[in-house]
Amino acid sequence: MAEEPVAPRVLTQVPGPRTLSTKKELDPIFDSRATQLVIDYEKSYGNYFVDADGNAYLDVYAQIASIPLGYNHPALAAAVQTPKMISALINRPAIGNFPSMDWLSSLEDGILRVCPVGLKQVFTAQSGSEANELAFKAAFMYYRRLQRGEGVEWSDHEIKTAMTNQSPGSPELAILSFTNSFHGRGFGSLSATRSKPVHKMDIPSFKWPQAPFPRLRYPLDEYESENAVEEDSCLQVVQHIIDTWHCPVAGVIVEPIQSEGGDNHASSAFFGRLRALTKKHNIILIVDEVQTGFGATGRFWGHEHWQLSSPPDIVTFSKKAQTAGYFFSDQMLRPDKAYRQFNTWMGDPARVLLCKAIIDVILNQGLVERTAHIGDILYGKLSELAKKHPDKVINLRGKGKGTYIAFDTVNSSALLKKMRTAGINIGSCGVDTIRLRPMLVFDECHGKVSKSSAIAP
Amino acid sequence: MAEEPVAPRVLTQVPGPRTLSTKKELDPIFDSRATQLVIDYEKSYGNYFVDADGNAYLDVYAQIASIPLGYNHPALAAAVQTPKMISALINRPAIGNFPSMDWLSSLEDGILRVCPVGLKQVFTAQSGSEANELAFKAAFMYYRRLQRGEGVEWSDHEIKTAMTNQSPGSPELAILSFTNSFHGRGFGSLSATRSKPVHKMDIPSFKWPQAPFPRLRYPLDEYESENAVEEDSCLQVVQHIIDTWHCPVAGVIVEPIQSEGGDNHASSAFFGRLRALTKKHNIILIVDEVQTGFGATGRFWGHEHWQLSSPPDIVTFSKKAQTAGYFFSDQMLRPDKAYRQFNTWMGDPARVLLCKAIIDVILNQGLVERTAHIGDILYGKLSELAKKHPDKVINLRGKGKGTYIAFDTVNSSALLKKMRTAGINIGSCGVDTIRLRPMLVFDECHGKVSKSSAIAP
Repeated sequence: MAEEPVAPRVLTQVPGPRTLSTKKELDPIFDSRATQLVIDYEKSYGNYFVDADGNAYLDVYAQIASIPLGYNHPALAAAVQTPKMISALINRPAIGNFPSMDWLSSLEDGILRVCPVGLKQVFTAQSGSEANELAFKAAFMYYRRLQRGEGVEWSDHEIKTAMTNQSPGSPELAILSFTNSFHGRGFGSLSATRSKPVHKMDIPSFKWPQAPFPRLRYPLDEYESENAVEEDSCLQVVQHIIDTWHCPVAGVIVEPIQSEGGDNHASSAFFGRLRALTKKHNIILIVDEVQTGFGATGRFWGHEHWQLSSPPDIVTFSKKAQTAGYFFSDQMLRPDKAYRQFNTWMGDPARVLLCKAIIDVILNQGLVERTAHIGDILYGKLSELAKKHPDKVINLRGKGKGTYIAFDTVNSSALLKKMRTAGINIGSCGVDTIRLRPMLVFDECHGKVSKSSAIAP
Repeated sequence: MAEEPVAPRVLTQVPGPRTLSTKKELDPIFDSRATQLVIDYEKSYGNYFVDADGNAYLDVYAQIASIPLGYNHPALAAAVQTPKMISALINRPAIGNFPSMDWLSSLEDGILRVCPVGLKQVFTAQSGSEANELAFKAAFMYYRRLQRGEGVEWSDHEIKTAMTNQSPGSPELAILSFTNSFHGRGFGSLSATRSKPVHKMDIPSFKWPQAPFPRLRYPLDEYESENAVEEDSCLQVVQHIIDTWHCPVAGVIVEPIQSEGGDNHASSAFFGRLRALTKKHNIILIVDEVQTGFGATGRFWGHEHWQLSSPPDIVTFSKKAQTAGYFFSDQMLRPDKAYRQFNTWMGDPARVLLCKAIIDVILNQGLVERTAHIGDILYGKLSELAKKHPDKVINLRGKGKGTYIAFDTVNSSALLKKMRTAGINIGSCGVDTIRLRPMLVFDECHGKVSKSSAIAP
């Protein structure tokens, strides 16, 4: 992209005076305590964003892993100025009742082109959190449908108790998730989220179980046998919970790589056994690809790395898709009656059209394969750095997973600040983990940016 | 609007062959059982939408009450083609961390211009359901903050139990809602929703209480004393629940007019007493204006009709705002730490900009006042009809509430079908209630459309 800076440019203190004054002005009407930088998006290009003070940063955090193709991508700028997009923006339909004539092709030529193998139905939503909750609801309805028996009508008792939030109409059923997982912050998705107290404190939750997620040693190929023991022990706990939890476990939700929780990996064997175990018990396996989906792991979907013999039941997406939703295949996961999974907007057709344009670029330019390639180079370089500074680049991980790379360090927040002062915007996760979450247009030249290459006044 | 049809035009059976064929094609990938008509939005104007078969309908349902200014409004078409809008669409930020330089003015010159009296802080969201859940979370954090004591840090025990979904970290606290209410379909909002079994069946829920919503007799001015007795009895139940529920009630949520649940009204005195009662117990009063907000009741916010001496604690919005969120004033409702109310996108800045354009039109053209006026005329005409056909137009309601008018009938779904065949798209709610939910550009001429004026081939 011609307008992309060739190097970071830091002209002021970070954050600069304009970020600080805007943050202060904003705060009385919109809580700005989490504001880190105020951005001039119209002046941002490619892998760089420019803040209100004119500083240009190489952005490898990408709006919490959600910008797919860099800032101001010309193909996306063109896509949002078409008559179809204008109509989708200003004539927002209740998609479930009154879809547009374009809705079918928006899906077919867009999100359906990249559906995970075997999962050819989609339900659109507006956020990862919403997508996961819709998936939970599908799992619960499925469980009760099997239990009730196909074609059996709801009893008066069920109807009455559903309305008073009591069993059996509103049953005690659980979603199992893993320690350190992040699945969103709605009341259902938050009950499955296990990453940080700041997410969960003071919020009522469902009494759902968590199983330990494997705590592997890195690099994975050096600790295969120890890691296999750890994974086996976690799966035994999953089995135990399924056997003994106070209510039936209707679904299991898992991230291909635990992201917010610390970029924790598990082996393909682990996920293969989890699939087998859930299948055996007829439990819906939901793979949360909100952060891992759309290419950053070097495959379009993170779970493709596992080469499962039988696909997950549901795969959820959001972030880089710039819209959200879930894929599924089993007709039984479509509720027995219309309107059971329904809401006014059911997603945003403008964002679904944008997603189509994103997919076009990703596929036409082979960005997933390129990300796999760039990721290998990046991992190699970081590996050298880890050997040189084993006390600062610890547990490097993400080998063979595209640019989805992370490492632990001693004081991640200090490092983030220092990096930003050098013109690089980067993210953390877990306790002291640095996570790289560059866009799919991250290239070799961006990996070579160093403090000395930065342009200062 | 020049392009708006002067009358309905029904050329085919309803639904027509193209709606039916598209619905059939769509179904394998996107559950289309709820699809009623497939719409050609690019050909739709003002109060009329045109379906895939070329039929033009006067639309007084407006995408489940969510189109504010009619289809293809030129001011909105202009607003979505500005550089700011293009940037907001293709450079979607994590607003909480990296807001754009325009974010402050988007809010100040937009949604803040119409904030309810006294509620000058806003938290943006993507749907009414999400807005309500964020409001619930604010209420729970507020409750625990008071209980814990200002400045008291979380204990290790709280932190540990929050992560395992146990009390006290994840406490048992309740939101009280009313019978027949609708507040959304997430796991938290659905626990407060009490409208229909199809929304709630098979979904686990929080054991939260419901109080009876007054079942008033209409017209309200003829049954004042009976209705006062009914309202008093409902408020006594609210008091009783607060006193006796198995866990503390931290919030009460109520719609100014229960919409999905049947267009049920209550008096200003009822809401005034509810405000006093919640204030007395330091319970957060959340007014759900997702459907009543943005002018349709003849005031910008439905709760303005009550003339409360002390404003609600939180007002939520969505639908006609074309974005979502909640307003509040009390600084204590802003959590004690950053990131406690936070998510990746925190709303959609493109939809917030569109909302600003909508507000400009509403205020510049005095559409709220006009809706009040048109509503009075409409109510008068329907009142005459009710006198003529008391067996078909029953319990007419919404006098003095703009175009937010409804009546019961004997077979609402048959009537809806018949109306659609005559070229009028209308909605139902409750058991057998017809709800009028026209846009703010509904005018006298639209009220005069009749079967005989419809254009047929």
